[in-house]
Order: sequence, then C-alpha cells, then structure tokens
Amino acid sequence: MGTTQLESVPEPKYWHLRTVLTEALDSEFAVGEILPNERDLAARFGVARATLRQALEQLELEGRLQRRRGVGTTVAPPRMGVDVGTEQHTWPGAGEDAWQSADCTLAEPPATVAEALETDRAEPVHIVRRTRMTHGQPVAAELLYIPRSSVPELSAIDAPSGAARARAVLRELQRLELEGGESAVELGSAGADDAKALDRLPGAPVLVVTTRYHADGRTAALSVATYRADTCRLTFGDSGGVEIHQGPERRAS
Amino acid sequence: MGTTQLESVPEPKYWHLRTVLTEALDSEFAVGEILPNERDLAARFGVARATLRQALEQLELEGRLQRRRGVGTTVAPPRMGVDVGTEQHTWPGAGEDAWQSADCTLAEPPATVAEALETDRAEPVHIVRRTRMTHGQPVAAELLYIPRSSVPELSAIDAPSGAARARAVLRELQRLELEGGESAVELGSAGADDAKALDRLPGAPVLVVTTRYHADGRTAALSVATYRADTCRLTFGDSGGVEIHQGPERRAS
Repeated sequence: MGTTQLESVPEPKYWHLRTVLTEALDSEFAVGEILPNERDLAARFGVARATLRQALEQLELEGRLQRRRGVGTTVAPPRMGVDVGTEQHTWPGAGEDAWQSADCTLAEPPATVAEALETDRAEPVHIVRRTRMTHGQPVAAELLYIPRSSVPELSAIDAPSGAARARAVLRELQRLELEGGESAVELGSAGADDAKALDRLPGAPVLVVTTRYHADGRTAALSVATYRADTCRLTFGDSGGVEIHQGPERRAS
Repeated sequence: MGTTQLESVPEPKYWHLRTVLTEALDSEFAVGEILPNERDLAARFGVARATLRQALEQLELEGRLQRRRGVGTTVAPPRMGVDVGTEQHTWPGAGEDAWQSADCTLAEPPATVAEALETDRAEPVHIVRRTRMTHGQPVAAELLYIPRSSVPELSAIDAPSGAARARAVLRELQRLELEGGESAVELGSAGADDAKALDRLPGAPVLVVTTRYHADGRTAALSVATYRADTCRLTFGDSGGVEIHQGPERRAS
C-alpha cells in the first residue's frame, strides 16, 4: 500500500524554514512587498539556497508568495473567491456571464471528451474557447465542448468565425432547457495555451474544473476549465465568506 | 498587472520533455510499473538530470506518476472520484459516513475559524479530527470545528476522550437540524499532522475543502479537510462519470 515509514522521517529542513518564513511574512511584510533576494534570505535564515528555494516554492503553492519574472518574489494578496457553482446564472451564455468568448472551432474532441458527451469520436463538435475575468485579471481558461446536435439550428451565415461564432453557439445553447450540471475538481498543470491565457508559465499548477450540462436527459455540453491555483479559491454555493487561511498555523494546539 | 511577457518565452525544456514522457507513459508503461532510474531516463531522452526531475515533478503534480521512498517512480492509477458534495448523507456523523473519527479536543480555534464560526476567539470549541478512507486508503484528513453552543447537551461522562468523545460530539451534532452547507476548494500543502494521516511527506500538494454547516440560521460547524491532490478528483453532485484526463493532449488541434 505504498507506506513511506513517515514516522521515521524527521521534519524536512525546507518545511521548518517554510514555517519560519510564514511567521516572518505575517509579521514583517505587507501584501505586494518585494522580498529580499535569495542570497540575502538564505544568509539571514542560515540555510542553503536550495533549501530556501524549496521553501519559497512551498509558499508559492500555498498562495502566500508570487514569483514574477523581472519583478522578483512578492507577498501575494489573499486568494479571490471564484464561484464555480452550477446555478443557472453561471451556465454558458447566461446574461451575467463573466466569461469572454475568444474563439470557436469545429473539430474532433479528445477521446475522453467524446466518451463523456456520448458522441462518436470521429464526430466533430463545437469547441468554444473562453476566458474568465475577475477584477480585470484572467482567472480561468475554458474549453467548452458542444455536440452539433445540441445546437442544430446554428447557421453558418450567422456565425462566420472567431468570437462572433462562439457567441452564436452559446446563444443557440441557451435555447435548450439546460439542467444544472455536476462538477469535478482536480489538480493539474497549465498547458501552453492555458498558460498564455492565464498569464502564467506552462506547467503552473491549476485547478481543473470539469462540468457537465444536461438537457433532455443527455449531456448537452461539457466544460473543461483551468483556474489559476495561486490566485483562486473556488466556491460552491454562496460561500464567499468562508476564508480560512491554510497551513499548519491553522491548527489549535 | 504583473505581465510576464509570455509571448517572448519559448517552451521550457522540461515542458517539452513532459509531453514526450506523457506519450511514453501512454504507449509503453502500465499502471504500477516502475520507471527506469533517473540516470537511465536522462540518458534515453538526452537531457540533464535537473530537467528530467522537473518533468517528473510535473507529471507527479498531474497525477500521472507517484514517487515513493524505497520503491522509486511508478505509473499512477487514474485518480479516484471522491464525493465532496453537501448532500445530507455526507454531513458529519451521518450513517453512511466514510470518515473515521480519531480524536476530539476542546481548544481555542485559529482566529480565522473563530471568525467563520462567529465565536469569540478565546472561546474554546470542540475540534474533531477525522480521516476519510476510500478503498482502504486515506484520502482526506479533516479538522471539524464545533462551537460548544452547537452541542449543549454533551455530557463529559458520555464522552471521556479520544475517538469515543469524537463520536459523542458528532452524535450530538446530528440532533441539530443541519442545513446543507457551502464549500470552497483551494490548493494547499499538507502540514505535518495531515501528511502523516495521508501517508505523504509534509508539503505534499493537497486540495483543501472548507465546508460550513448551518443550523437555525447560524454556523453550527466548520470543516477544514485536506484531500490528497495526487490521488483524488473531488466531485460535486453525481458526477462519478466525468473523467477527463487532463493535460495539453486533451486539446483538439
């Protein structure tokens, strides 16, 4: 069962440093402040550069630090709560939609998507690419897969290409009686296109939200959205107020 | 707004290697198979050890590989779908509960928890520690914070300490008319206690699910649960069937 004999493993050095750094961030630094460079930090805490880097990566993963090319390492603001519930107002094409449609193509979906859509693998589907903006920042990049049977009245004249075509497809999708949807969330890494849309480097950790929308008892559309894991806290239901800062400090002793 | 001039950044070497390795995993390796050692892999793909390690870390993040002390790097099985919806049967203490209660203490909660519970910071709350098991493996470690006012009839005689006390607190909590709950999901890293419960090393990436339970219009309990990000796909609603393997391969070209 893959046990790793954790009992015999002492606390790694970078983990101890991470705890010390967290305390320093809480007490000495303000949001947006630039940290001293790695050499100075390593000297201050009496650790090797490699150990320091591991601890900084840890804090980046936890959303406490941001590392930006040409700027350095800064103290991150609290994560934004982003609603990914499947209430009606969040459905693709709905009025209050925070998504910006960028493009739409007709292409064969990946095998796993075809399976979820219950379409034939060789059957092209509409693929709408959208970006979700919050406070002027991109928080998610989405591919929305829509079988042609879900939008049978789409006219090529109405929707020649690009963003206009994407909007036309979503408008047609809205004519269906969409029924809620179920979601799954998992950890992933940003592919090249997503990374570009999200202003990150390829491989950056993302939260991948897969949502299935139904109509007339079958899957009418499938959304695969990648959210920035560094800046987003995904909320389900009206939980804007649930803001628990993570980390071992949260423990009561 | 912190742009990083991504347009001018070429695809990093480890990212390209990651794509090549993904294809090799799909075509040449079975689930559970042990990969060749780093030196042999680096030689085979003609890359530096550091580049190889970055690519392997990437694939570990995506849940494709598992690295285990004393075993080496193995091909990971598909992630398990774990329901974290807030339907009644998942409420703390419910009959079909997949959680094992380990312990219960009465202590001051962290400030952020006190705020969410709308209790005074100095007011001790019941803190139930539980572990969620799926297919015999630990998938989540939870701290459940319950204000004393939620379980006023708890008797010290019924519940002396440890797991028995935890069960008594949950039984009392069940007497309340709990109302659903809202959840938030974010990326975090396992603290020492969580890591131990989850059979991981401290700092391992986890998905932190914060859920608030209501009764009589106020917060009756707050759950902070850390799920293993490598093995779990969190599902909301009945979405057991939504299994989209992530990564750039999923794109239609």
